[in-house]
Amino acid sequence: MANSISRLEKLYFRLEAQVACLAFAFSEIATRPGLVFELGLGHGRTFDHLRKNLPSREIYVFDRQVDSYPDCTPDTEHIILGELSQTLPVAASRFAGKVILAHCDVGSFSAEHNKTMSTIVSAHLPPALADGALILSDLPLAIPETTRLPLPPGAREDRYFIYRFSSSRT
Amino acid sequence: MANSISRLEKLYFRLEAQVACLAFAFSEIATRPGLVFELGLGHGRTFDHLRKNLPSREIYVFDRQVDSYPDCTPDTEHIILGELSQTLPVAASRFAGKVILAHCDVGSFSAEHNKTMSTIVSAHLPPALADGALILSDLPLAIPETTRLPLPPGAREDRYFIYRFSSSRT
Repeated sequence: MANSISRLEKLYFRLEAQVACLAFAFSEIATRPGLVFELGLGHGRTFDHLRKNLPSREIYVFDRQVDSYPDCTPDTEHIILGELSQTLPVAASRFAGKVILAHCDVGSFSAEHNKTMSTIVSAHLPPALADGALILSDLPLAIPETTRLPLPPGAREDRYFIYRFSSSRT
Repeated sequence: MANSISRLEKLYFRLEAQVACLAFAFSEIATRPGLVFELGLGHGRTFDHLRKNLPSREIYVFDRQVDSYPDCTPDTEHIILGELSQTLPVAASRFAGKVILAHCDVGSFSAEHNKTMSTIVSAHLPPALADGALILSDLPLAIPETTRLPLPPGAREDRYFIYRFSSSRT
């Protein structure tokens, strides 16, 4: 056997964790009202997964530009383009307390970029969150009002993070 | 539940099948000599998986150009660049009967492209294959000297193909 996982396994385990965490989140929020923030559209695969599994939710997607499959692109009212440091504070104010699920997929191969993105999300996402909201993130976040939850069964990879937001904390 | 799988699940199931099929192949060829052909380098994830799991095998990788992660790029002696219709016949002649495992990942979203690639691989790969060689492919192939094998347990997705080559057939 190999000593370390291959890049193929890395992507596979990452998707496995993502699918398992999203299934957990879909179940957890089933009885709670609220909308969804997707930070990072990318090719639109996760957006497609969100809309298929949450057909009655409004989903707002953030990215710098549209680079998704044509059939995985949100309509113009639900895509918010620009730098997250600019767009997230505005959206968090517009949708204050209404977001029940935030999925954050804004990491890259640059540690410096990841630290910056984690800081931006940690600083500007909280005002948007409803009490009990879940945050799923590819980067560790530092939001005092959240508790980190264990990953659900089926998620082998530990580089994925689930936080629950409580408006009564700190 | 969603009526059809999402693009996220599609990629996830595809990787799941690929990892399971490769594990099956590694076990099957363990006691057989021979080298490996990887048709389609892409980002180099599968090449990384092959070299980690088959550290003593020579692996020759084919693609039009190098677009892989720097740490997943074969050395210049083991990468064969150009159109597969040109490079594969030459390589199959050079390594006649010596390939024990061929991994083919040359499909795209274009049905026409896929048909062309399937025809090229089916026509020009066989002379390279050792008796008992396995072919793993993202496209269906039409090689008379092969038998299609069932996918191993753990592979949910059926759009992946395993063939065993027998030089005594037809």
